[in-house]
Amino acid sequence: MKAAILKKPKEIIIKDIPEPEYGDNEILINIKEVGLCGSDVHYYNTGRIGDFIVEKPIILGHESSGIIAEVGKNVKGLKVGDRVTIEPGVPCYSCNYCKKGDYNLCPNIRFMATPPYDGAFVEYVAYDPNFVYKLPSNVSFTSGALIEPLSVGYSASKRAKIGPGDKVLILGSGPIAISILEITKTFGASRIYITDINDFRLEIAKKHGAYKTINIRKQDIFKELEDIKIDSVIEASGVESSIINSIKLVKPEGTVVWVGMGKDDIEIPYSKLTSKDLTVEGIFRYRNTYPSIISLLEEKKVNIEDIATHYFKLDEIDKAFNVANNPNADKMKIIIRI
Amino acid sequence: MKAAILKKPKEIIIKDIPEPEYGDNEILINIKEVGLCGSDVHYYNTGRIGDFIVEKPIILGHESSGIIAEVGKNVKGLKVGDRVTIEPGVPCYSCNYCKKGDYNLCPNIRFMATPPYDGAFVEYVAYDPNFVYKLPSNVSFTSGALIEPLSVGYSASKRAKIGPGDKVLILGSGPIAISILEITKTFGASRIYITDINDFRLEIAKKHGAYKTINIRKQDIFKELEDIKIDSVIEASGVESSIINSIKLVKPEGTVVWVGMGKDDIEIPYSKLTSKDLTVEGIFRYRNTYPSIISLLEEKKVNIEDIATHYFKLDEIDKAFNVANNPNADKMKIIIRI
Amino acid sequence: MKAAILKKPKEIIIKDIPEPEYGDNEILINIKEVGLCGSDVHYYNTGRIGDFIVEKPIILGHESSGIIAEVGKNVKGLKVGDRVTIEPGVPCYSCNYCKKGDYNLCPNIRFMATPPYDGAFVEYVAYDPNFVYKLPSNVSFTSGALIEPLSVGYSASKRAKIGPGDKVLILGSGPIAISILEITKTFGASRIYITDINDFRLEIAKKHGAYKTINIRKQDIFKELEDIKIDSVIEASGVESSIINSIKLVKPEGTVVWVGMGKDDIEIPYSKLTSKDLTVEGIFRYRNTYPSIISLLEEKKVNIEDIATHYFKLDEIDKAFNVANNPNADKMKIIIRI
Amino acid sequence: MKAAILKKPKEIIIKDIPEPEYGDNEILINIKEVGLCGSDVHYYNTGRIGDFIVEKPIILGHESSGIIAEVGKNVKGLKVGDRVTIEPGVPCYSCNYCKKGDYNLCPNIRFMATPPYDGAFVEYVAYDPNFVYKLPSNVSFTSGALIEPLSVGYSASKRAKIGPGDKVLILGSGPIAISILEITKTFGASRIYITDINDFRLEIAKKHGAYKTINIRKQDIFKELEDIKIDSVIEASGVESSIINSIKLVKPEGTVVWVGMGKDDIEIPYSKLTSKDLTVEGIFRYRNTYPSIISLLEEKKVNIEDIATHYFKLDEIDKAFNVANNPNADKMKIIIRI
Repeated sequence: MKAAILKKPKEIIIKDIPEPEYGDNEILINIKEVGLCGSDVHYYNTGRIGDFIVEKPIILGHESSGIIAEVGKNVKGLKVGDRVTIEPGVPCYSCNYCKKGDYNLCPNIRFMATPPYDGAFVEYVAYDPNFVYKLPSNVSFTSGALIEPLSVGYSASKRAKIGPGDKVLILGSGPIAISILEITKTFGASRIYITDINDFRLEIAKKHGAYKTINIRKQDIFKELEDIKIDSVIEASGVESSIINSIKLVKPEGTVVWVGMGKDDIEIPYSKLTSKDLTVEGIFRYRNTYPSIISLLEEKKVNIEDIATHYFKLDEIDKAFNVANNPNADKMKIIIRI
Repeated sequence: MKAAILKKPKEIIIKDIPEPEYGDNEILINIKEVGLCGSDVHYYNTGRIGDFIVEKPIILGHESSGIIAEVGKNVKGLKVGDRVTIEPGVPCYSCNYCKKGDYNLCPNIRFMATPPYDGAFVEYVAYDPNFVYKLPSNVSFTSGALIEPLSVGYSASKRAKIGPGDKVLILGSGPIAISILEITKTFGASRIYITDINDFRLEIAKKHGAYKTINIRKQDIFKELEDIKIDSVIEASGVESSIINSIKLVKPEGTVVWVGMGKDDIEIPYSKLTSKDLTVEGIFRYRNTYPSIISLLEEKKVNIEDIATHYFKLDEIDKAFNVANNPNADKMKIIIRI
Repeated sequence: MKAAILKKPKEIIIKDIPEPEYGDNEILINIKEVGLCGSDVHYYNTGRIGDFIVEKPIILGHESSGIIAEVGKNVKGLKVGDRVTIEPGVPCYSCNYCKKGDYNLCPNIRFMATPPYDGAFVEYVAYDPNFVYKLPSNVSFTSGALIEPLSVGYSASKRAKIGPGDKVLILGSGPIAISILEITKTFGASRIYITDINDFRLEIAKKHGAYKTINIRKQDIFKELEDIKIDSVIEASGVESSIINSIKLVKPEGTVVWVGMGKDDIEIPYSKLTSKDLTVEGIFRYRNTYPSIISLLEEKKVNIEDIATHYFKLDEIDKAFNVANNPNADKMKIIIRI
Repeated sequence: MKAAILKKPKEIIIKDIPEPEYGDNEILINIKEVGLCGSDVHYYNTGRIGDFIVEKPIILGHESSGIIAEVGKNVKGLKVGDRVTIEPGVPCYSCNYCKKGDYNLCPNIRFMATPPYDGAFVEYVAYDPNFVYKLPSNVSFTSGALIEPLSVGYSASKRAKIGPGDKVLILGSGPIAISILEITKTFGASRIYITDINDFRLEIAKKHGAYKTINIRKQDIFKELEDIKIDSVIEASGVESSIINSIKLVKPEGTVVWVGMGKDDIEIPYSKLTSKDLTVEGIFRYRNTYPSIISLLEEKKVNIEDIATHYFKLDEIDKAFNVANNPNADKMKIIIRI
């Protein structure tokens, strides 16, 4: 089968490798669509994210959907031909985090496309069926793959404690930010303000229901939000100035959620954070989100498919990374079709 | 000014009474629209609800909106001519419940149309401005009056712990149930099942976004909901069999919310409640809901105006109670226009 | 090895059976002490609890501690000779309840001494090491066995939302009630009121820190608690009148927790429950409690050992059930030493 | 009456001023004891804290207790001679924060000893009786005054989400830290680790039940806490390095609470905060804590009186500030007796 293998930074090759073996408790999935995530681009460009370092060739990609090709003999509830989405982390099941259901913090989790574990830019993947979910017939493979960023949105919105009638500010308008926006609406936010430096992206945010878009290159965000009581700010850009502003722009007693991957160390307005009685939530992945999001997609409470602005085949993956790295390209989500 | 005064059960008269005095810290409101609530009908029919007994003539009505006619000299933030809605309870501010913000439980609360306090079926009301809220220009007096039942819906949905993707069952399809339905959607419920014995009401529920309506006279609710994992049940009918069913129909670990006023004593399936690890929430009014609901109405996340099926003038209030008491009338919400 | 086998109601025999096989992922535990629980007595007397029916001979006992005798080859973190306590339910790990950490609701859980699963009145048990915990050297086998009822106490106290300074009422003074009392103190309750009809038990409650004991045969509980704002009531007797009183005795907005196994159907004061805005929590077992309780025992924040009033050997188990069934016996917890 | 008036930094004088008038809804309190708080010392030394600037002479002191000297004619529930403690902030009652019970964030709060409002280093204070609480006869004036720092401890412990069996790290061992320690115990912490650079203070922490004290001048805190899963860290020193360490020392998914007043801007390990999925809580004062703490003091669940190491008379207040400013003095809490 064909696989896209990152040999070293900026060098990705398409190679034939053997199909994976699948155990009695596993299924084999024929991957159909995989989203290109910012972390994939980061590994492609630099070979590392924080403490995770690409030390041997790796298959990237962790936002994926596909069709079940084979089913291990002990597996129940799934069958060959089922259209499915894959939750990309499989935890150990037995540590204290797992037993409490907080498996995103399992120290032994095997997370796709995070060294040393391979991901989904490949034709077939053997997987634990407990983390594979059937897609309703009206949910496309693209939407199925994007349940992964929507899960980040779900986790962020929940930690932001958003309730009906709240005013929410999302900083950044990339694919994660739009995923957050879509989910934030389902938590009842009545007005969602969103920022970026790119009008193409802000236009998409507007179509997805943002109450007001702010291009921070052209507009003064503090002036635009003057006198607005922002209940929660979700920072989804990872940009230092934006992380700092998140604390300044939220109302006293509000909640600030930091989703964006940023620099190791950042100087924050500490005394504002305490004198405003704020809660700050750092987000690491998500847990127990897939069934809820599938239900929201099925009932059309969430619409995400149209954020896919570019589709490439597996053997065009180089092009996909080039578009991703081109700051002048009008792009939102890039999908690899396999 | 004219007032509708309940002299004794079934006897309501329109009478001229003096306009109320308003203090330096109060405002005078010219009432425009008032919803007829089930509790008004109960007092009209029987002169009492539980421990609350009508012992002297009373003005009913507590779902109201109007225009500010006069403003006391110490009042800030409101002015003559403002279109407003009235939150019908004014608490004491100083008991422990009030200090914690749980003012719906204030033992000294003065609640409109609850003996001995008069309500809003009258031309002018003097009121505490802290519990009066401006209506956005795109929110009608009808919607403004119905923020009161929507508040019950907000409180019930919050206590039901509804989150995006949840499946919710609402028992009953009266005005409170539709208010709950509208708010439940804003909490992210992906599928809302709703019941009644009246197709006219179920039809309205359908228009308001119910996923499935069940006429329990014609359909077997246990069969209709077989294999459906209901995350939360909100009982809004007060009917004994329905209160019992709420415990049977929710999933293990689910939440049951009892909104409906029912009999003093009811035999419930106790061992089911414990062996399913359930949470049951009894709802008494609401608190701190008006600003959020006004924002939801302004942004059209909630639509309630069209549940008003009948409008009457103040001096037709007898007719209004007759319609309310007619079991064969196709009706949802009755509004008194003053 | 020797086992105590319940053949039919009131007929328990000591029999030699083969030692259990243990798998590569299991351990073999030499049971040392097992508490006799109310449910054991119920099965012994009647052969059933609710839907759980003893249809073939069963080994009872699920409050146990022991020493590891053998360790499967894949097991890590435990070794032969470790003193341990056993959490008596092993869930399926893969249902939605398990993935969320709410494994007490796993529909596939294998719970000791609940038909058809055998329990711990036996010399050796093969078990999943994920639900076996090492005992600190200063925690006895008796205390280790009693982490099970303490777990019910932990779950009840948490669901009761007890915080420092709260006034709590516990209805009943049996072993579960004393377990609740001990844990309730660690949640910060400043005053704990407790009831029973038995002075011997109330005396033990007093020694464990109850602020006030009430013998409801001799005292009028409503008079004794007049003007006391009880924040939470935990019902631990299962007696109908007590379940009804739990709703009457809690303050408005308070929490009522129902732990006690009671009749299938009970007539409750429904309108009080709603007009007081109450939360009622039905408790089914517990989850994720063992590590915390072990830490509390180790640091002597919880003391439970002295509630063991009677010890019997395995082949005296008939006597143990006789004492349990004797209403005139001064008893609290009965322990079987193996 | 005599008052201690801060005229400018480092210049405090004792002056005769008129007794305050008290309104019909107020009481007059004869102040007995007042704790000297770090913020008092800060105003004394520099004339400002953040945006709060001493622009005209001010009376400091906000941790106070006393005896009621006069009662306004509308006041109920309090009488002349009552021993009381004063909660030092009186909010506006009518903003949205107040209505929700979150009055610590009321923008119009009148907080004692925060410019421009006078405090309690004075013989008599006129006050709103809603924020004055009777002291039980077994609670001393010293303990009564120290309910204020205990309230910070209550708020911090609650926001830290401490539950029974948790391991907690408190950074710093000053009076606020010991107050946190005392309250943290009531939330059920099984092991409390605490740090300082001063052995005198660590010794007091030990006496108050700290499991382990760490002198960070002499010991390597990372080594001392190696392999310890700290559930919550409460930072109570305001020292930059300690604020940074709070994020490093907590377990993944843990909670960090920042109580200490620190520099305006601090460089924090941002990517650790997000990759560990942390919650950070900034604490600004407290709300609704006094009744609970009084109950805890009355039942001796909390002991705070013995942290008072120095007592001075009002006209010795200069000496009190000198001791507070002397880095070599062995001191914990300084109390002014009036």
